[in-house]
Amino acid sequence: LLSLEPISGRARVQVKNPYLDTMEEDILYHFSLGTKTHNLPEMFGDIKFVCVGGSSNRMKAFAQFIHQELEMPGNPEEVSDICEATDRYCMYKVGPVLSMSHGMGVPSISIMLHELIKLLHHAQCRDVVLFRLGTSGGVGLAPGTVVVTDKAVDYSFLAQFEQVVLGKVVTRSTELDEEVANELLQCSSELQNFPTVIGNTLCTHDFYEGQGRLDGALCSFSHEDKLEYLRKAYEAGVRNIEMESSVFAAMCRICGLKGTLINPWSFFL
Amino acid sequence: LLSLEPISGRARVQVKNPYLDTMEEDILYHFSLGTKTHNLPEMFGDIKFVCVGGSSNRMKAFAQFIHQELEMPGNPEEVSDICEATDRYCMYKVGPVLSMSHGMGVPSISIMLHELIKLLHHAQCRDVVLFRLGTSGGVGLAPGTVVVTDKAVDYSFLAQFEQVVLGKVVTRSTELDEEVANELLQCSSELQNFPTVIGNTLCTHDFYEGQGRLDGALCSFSHEDKLEYLRKAYEAGVRNIEMESSVFAAMCRICGLKGTLINPWSFFL
Repeated sequence: LLSLEPISGRARVQVKNPYLDTMEEDILYHFSLGTKTHNLPEMFGDIKFVCVGGSSNRMKAFAQFIHQELEMPGNPEEVSDICEATDRYCMYKVGPVLSMSHGMGVPSISIMLHELIKLLHHAQCRDVVLFRLGTSGGVGLAPGTVVVTDKAVDYSFLAQFEQVVLGKVVTRSTELDEEVANELLQCSSELQNFPTVIGNTLCTHDFYEGQGRLDGALCSFSHEDKLEYLRKAYEAGVRNIEMESSVFAAMCRICGLKGTLINPWSFFL
Repeated sequence: LLSLEPISGRARVQVKNPYLDTMEEDILYHFSLGTKTHNLPEMFGDIKFVCVGGSSNRMKAFAQFIHQELEMPGNPEEVSDICEATDRYCMYKVGPVLSMSHGMGVPSISIMLHELIKLLHHAQCRDVVLFRLGTSGGVGLAPGTVVVTDKAVDYSFLAQFEQVVLGKVVTRSTELDEEVANELLQCSSELQNFPTVIGNTLCTHDFYEGQGRLDGALCSFSHEDKLEYLRKAYEAGVRNIEMESSVFAAMCRICGLKGTLINPWSFFL
């Protein structure tokens, strides 16, 4: 069992905030957890894999699936939401695996990532790998194809994330860990029925106009304009479109977390 | 009762998408509703007020409160979630009032607004007023003060929202309906214990670095830098900070919906 493997000593999860260690208490507001009210090392110290996705129902189902796969004692149906005191996110822990929801869009997952990274830091976790398992729209692929993200790109197909810090725009890289992506591709090749590619993931800030959908409340472009944009995206290496990858990649990189996105083609564009 | 007032004939909720009326079926994916599977005019045609907020628990509690205030028949505890087939948003209808959650951040509320505006359009609703009732951080105000938003401003304190449409940045105005804001201010002056101001609302795309918090996983600025930014914001007319106002204001304006944000000072910055 993964949780019984020895801690290797390398790669403790890093925060990049000099104030944190001087604070008397750190409250993870949106998780309803805190360093004074909860023993975070005891609760979370053995975590090795964090799997996140938008939908709370799906992340509960994923926790139950992992419970069965790892042959954990007890009833998988009875996994309990560690964040049940709040409705912002849900969180399930199954052995060394944490399964969490993050809602939809960059701001929503950004709040979750700040508090998750602080949680892993306070819990003294080491060698954690972070995965986003979500829905996405495929670009030029057969339906059902799984895309493992190489890098997250913005609407101009650049591997960057623009973060506003106190009114100033800071540009951060969104290149992800190659090793993790390659390992996942290797795993998929050993399985039947999981056509998998490594590609760039376009991160948009809305579902309709940014992704070229013709069925939003607002639409000012033609079907041809849409196809032209998707063609350009494909030529730039984009294989799928979703709404969280850019800040996920940027924060993994800054905090020394290995991570990637594994998103099946699940939406028609 | 508001639902019994005659329909005035003006101001049907508008979509700005020439394709919509030619579609055989419109599926509101994130609500689990559709024009073929649901009779939207029958279900929603009498709606006059839509109240939205981030948290699903809070919007359920708000629906129960409205149920009591309007002295509706039946048990307020039994209001049922119209979107229960999905966990993306929750939706409660109490007479002419719709109470909905929108999650956190611009992308999340943007998806909800696209589908809400289409829903109101398909249901042939008229004279709808839209309110966001959410949490926010106050700027230079006493805790508890309610801020009614005049306009939503971006990190540079400009009343604009940048929407990416097929890879191009389109700038939209975020000025809100003055009449609604003034009526609300008038209402508040008739009540005890609701100190209320009209002011600009700063919309950020994250909770930590964008709002100057010193307790995120990442923090690259000092306490003085933070105070300096908040001082500049106050001078520019900002009275509170939250994460949804810009797209809310922009979409209300484009679709001819009267709306505003009524956010109490609920978070320390």
